[in-house]
Amino acid sequence: MLFTAIFLLLLANFATLTHATTRSPQTSNRNATRSGKVKTLLLLAYGGEDMEIFITADVLTKTKEFDVTVAGVTGPEMVITGADVRCIPDQSLDSAMQKGPYDLIVLPGGLYGAPVLVASDKVGGFVRQHVARGGVVAAICGGNWALMKYGVFKGKRITSFPYFRMLMRQFDVRKEWKIVDEDRVLVDGKLISSQGPATTAEFSFAIVEYFLGKPHAELLANFFLFKNDLFSLS
Amino acid sequence: MLFTAIFLLLLANFATLTHATTRSPQTSNRNATRSGKVKTLLLLAYGGEDMEIFITADVLTKTKEFDVTVAGVTGPEMVITGADVRCIPDQSLDSAMQKGPYDLIVLPGGLYGAPVLVASDKVGGFVRQHVARGGVVAAICGGNWALMKYGVFKGKRITSFPYFRMLMRQFDVRKEWKIVDEDRVLVDGKLISSQGPATTAEFSFAIVEYFLGKPHAELLANFFLFKNDLFSLS
Repeated sequence: MLFTAIFLLLLANFATLTHATTRSPQTSNRNATRSGKVKTLLLLAYGGEDMEIFITADVLTKTKEFDVTVAGVTGPEMVITGADVRCIPDQSLDSAMQKGPYDLIVLPGGLYGAPVLVASDKVGGFVRQHVARGGVVAAICGGNWALMKYGVFKGKRITSFPYFRMLMRQFDVRKEWKIVDEDRVLVDGKLISSQGPATTAEFSFAIVEYFLGKPHAELLANFFLFKNDLFSLS
Repeated sequence: MLFTAIFLLLLANFATLTHATTRSPQTSNRNATRSGKVKTLLLLAYGGEDMEIFITADVLTKTKEFDVTVAGVTGPEMVITGADVRCIPDQSLDSAMQKGPYDLIVLPGGLYGAPVLVASDKVGGFVRQHVARGGVVAAICGGNWALMKYGVFKGKRITSFPYFRMLMRQFDVRKEWKIVDEDRVLVDGKLISSQGPATTAEFSFAIVEYFLGKPHAELLANFFLFKNDLFSLS
């Protein structure tokens, strides 16, 4: 009885919180689609970096303003992440592509996950179409290396995990991108890039800020207990 | 051909890194089992908080020194997390319990996930046996509220998510625990407690430090790009 009461209290509290974080975000930069949801494709590859996948999924989903589809790059089957977690995509990339276009595509990295994205002509083609259409891309860690392979966002400032920045510099013989070492999160036009696992929270809040405005992102960061000085890095 | 070469380079680099993080951690507090692995049970409940589940799984697994079993509290079936991620446990809790004892049990929280743990007599009984046997428990967010329900670690200093601390104070009418507001991560004897999503990385590195020593934890934190000043909070 006590626990039923406490559980109901929890639900009521959560509902209040959700309401608080979703009502009128007073945004000056609201780019959500007319439905009010930011239609988002999050790519799930074998060996993907868990923090980059799940922190991003968590933050965007908890806003209640992003409609997140976790798409299995190689199909609808279970994917084993870099930390051996067994995750089932919401749908295959093939299926998800048919339900596009999207407002946002998120590319996580991972020492094993990133090469899967780099090697995928299917993902490359879809991202190129998305960028040509004016869509936003958020890429972290090796996801940024994949963007260079796809040939998108030339001329933009882009960052990544130190190891992948080394590979990106070797790849970028014509100096077509501006590879940046210092920033933990970079927003240049419609490209949001970030370094790696430890910067995923800032990356996620930068995405929220881009679409819903800073007050919304700050309220959510506060709920997750992120400190102001960490959040301010984004 | 270029990408095959780069992929092989990646693998070689990762192997080197793994070797670097696992060899002779020069620990003064090595409590790993004789096999060299810390046998770990991570509880996965419906509605569990994604950051608390997956950051912990990621950090512990990447050490290569923890043998992590993700156990489904209600069975072997797919679990939907708080961020609507679909995760398949490594095995059911029933099955995992038979393969005990464990060195470490990890209890994540979540506004929906924590009440599942609080209400589970099965988890309660198993945690009580584990604590009586001298096992270590790491609990974050509402996982700490569950520990109080199970009646373990009385007299210990314990922290949690602000909302759960409020519930814990209401529950703790006899003042049998020392509920702490300030610390992001607390280690008191064999109890490692922490506040919530944003403190999960520090919580995970505190677990690594407890079992493998500080140099090992720092090397891993550095790999994930966590800054020294964040890590020092643990």
